[in-house]
Amino acid sequence: MTEPLFSIPLWADLLGVGLGGVQGAMFASGFQGQRRLDWLGVAIIGIMIGMGGGLIRDILLGQTPATLQSNWYLLTATGAALLGMLLAGLFNRLNTVIVVLDAVVIGMFGAFGTSKAIAFGIPPVPAVFIGVCAAVGGGVLRDMLMGLPTSIMHVGSLYAVAAGAGCAFIAVANALAMPITLAAVIGIVVTAVIRVLAVSFDVSLPEQRRLYRRKVAAETGAIAIVKPGVDL
Amino acid sequence: MTEPLFSIPLWADLLGVGLGGVQGAMFASGFQGQRRLDWLGVAIIGIMIGMGGGLIRDILLGQTPATLQSNWYLLTATGAALLGMLLAGLFNRLNTVIVVLDAVVIGMFGAFGTSKAIAFGIPPVPAVFIGVCAAVGGGVLRDMLMGLPTSIMHVGSLYAVAAGAGCAFIAVANALAMPITLAAVIGIVVTAVIRVLAVSFDVSLPEQRRLYRRKVAAETGAIAIVKPGVDL
Amino acid sequence: MTEPLFSIPLWADLLGVGLGGVQGAMFASGFQGQRRLDWLGVAIIGIMIGMGGGLIRDILLGQTPATLQSNWYLLTATGAALLGMLLAGLFNRLNTVIVVLDAVVIGMFGAFGTSKAIAFGIPPVPAVFIGVCAAVGGGVLRDMLMGLPTSIMHVGSLYAVAAGAGCAFIAVANALAMPITLAAVIGIVVTAVIRVLAVSFDVSLPEQRRLYRRKVAAETGAIAIVKPGVDL
Repeated sequence: MTEPLFSIPLWADLLGVGLGGVQGAMFASGFQGQRRLDWLGVAIIGIMIGMGGGLIRDILLGQTPATLQSNWYLLTATGAALLGMLLAGLFNRLNTVIVVLDAVVIGMFGAFGTSKAIAFGIPPVPAVFIGVCAAVGGGVLRDMLMGLPTSIMHVGSLYAVAAGAGCAFIAVANALAMPITLAAVIGIVVTAVIRVLAVSFDVSLPEQRRLYRRKVAAETGAIAIVKPGVDL
Repeated sequence: MTEPLFSIPLWADLLGVGLGGVQGAMFASGFQGQRRLDWLGVAIIGIMIGMGGGLIRDILLGQTPATLQSNWYLLTATGAALLGMLLAGLFNRLNTVIVVLDAVVIGMFGAFGTSKAIAFGIPPVPAVFIGVCAAVGGGVLRDMLMGLPTSIMHVGSLYAVAAGAGCAFIAVANALAMPITLAAVIGIVVTAVIRVLAVSFDVSLPEQRRLYRRKVAAETGAIAIVKPGVDL
Repeated sequence: MTEPLFSIPLWADLLGVGLGGVQGAMFASGFQGQRRLDWLGVAIIGIMIGMGGGLIRDILLGQTPATLQSNWYLLTATGAALLGMLLAGLFNRLNTVIVVLDAVVIGMFGAFGTSKAIAFGIPPVPAVFIGVCAAVGGGVLRDMLMGLPTSIMHVGSLYAVAAGAGCAFIAVANALAMPITLAAVIGIVVTAVIRVLAVSFDVSLPEQRRLYRRKVAAETGAIAIVKPGVDL
């Protein structure tokens, strides 16, 4: 394992943690009915989104989690979660803010994950994988804790794809000797833009069953009358 | 990373594992309908509650899990889970026993987690965080495996707060040079007492939405007639 | 910690990853309705089943995950997941293939987990535990991500028992000085055969509540008229 060539500056790391904390708390604050959360639950989701990506990255790298080596990370995540709750109370329609924040946060966690993996001598393919896990891991854990269907698993996401594109860019750019800091910044932009565009234009991956059924219908000569909005 | 100043005595560690195993199995035995478990499922929950806290603590600390370095932990957890199943069959109304056991177990896992983190040179804030994760982690995993809403996330818990109070006491007491063993014992008592009192008097954190809605109602001049038991 | 005496050959490790990837993708492809997945979701489940066992094993061992030290694992898992999707489209009734593949895969992950744990000086009882976690861990994570009831927790599984029997065989055979490679091969066969037989003959562990209720019925003198197929 090589000596790390690159370390994430503390301010950048804390910025990611803080934005994640704000986004997580704003998201969690929006739930009502069976899934509404008390203050503590909202704060836990905020802390988890803020810190989950870094924890998953370091556990996959076999490193002692960096977010637990200093008081700053938890203080930032907690403060950010409180701020997120406050903002959720001030604004009425938060969806755009939440989506954009989320896009930036998965971009940052993906870029930090891939960069750190490369710095620790991990080959490019698993380095991208670690980046994607760092980017989407906090959201997966959030969905499990809140009893929601996990967002990356369901039709209409492009969630992991956006993270993967940014992380893959970093790995390729690093192989082509682009400075890692520049590559990481571009990687964040790539992920965030894909994610925001995917949400804006409602792009989704083809659903596995749907294509299969169409093929079956074609093979069996069945006529499938497809009305817009009707789910096959 | 400093040389550990403190190691959890094996008997204390095994006591926590054993009590956790009994509590987990008693809890899991109580389910019927769609969520009832077979013997193996009950044993798995017992082992998970008994050993989960220590595993999470050591993974977050970047250490090889202590519970997997000796045969004793798993033998204790398994035996305790079988005992828990037996006890669940003998008693009719177990709720009080389960609540008290649970309070003691989260106190112990929290105290062991925070103490070990401090011994490994982790700063106080993340040391408390690791303690809370160790205390509540087994229960979170249990709820996920059993398909229950995760207890720490929902209104009316004070679960993580109780663990946090005990762990924070240990971190502060350690900073003030109190011997860590004494601090850990007091920390366990603090957590257990808060948790039992919270359940007894049905104390809960204010629910996030409810407060927000009251504020909106006040601002808009709406009159909210609140009947007892009616959920806003 | 002793020097590893045994390392899993890369081809064997990749075979397990590949078979897991095929099985995971075939399984995930079979879902419709609320739980149907898009292509990405199916691929994620395939990669998770293919790589999850090794990741869990290495995290529990406190080792840097072997599956992230080389490009081959992820490439194999992804290719296998794509193959699994294709196969799921070609065949109509896949259940037998999925069950047999699954039995072999849990056998392999269990055997690799226990063998590696023994090689790292872990005592026999936790070595079996690590093997079982490696064998069933991918499936648990799959069920959580897909919002399914976790298969190892529910009546009628014998899932973890099959894995445990194979892993226990390896630990005992190793203690009796059987060469670890031979022990691992027999362990895989033991697990796979138990699992396939359990599914074929619909063997299940006695359900905890059922036995308890029968005892209560016997003690209270109540007459329980049990019709076949009626669930007590």
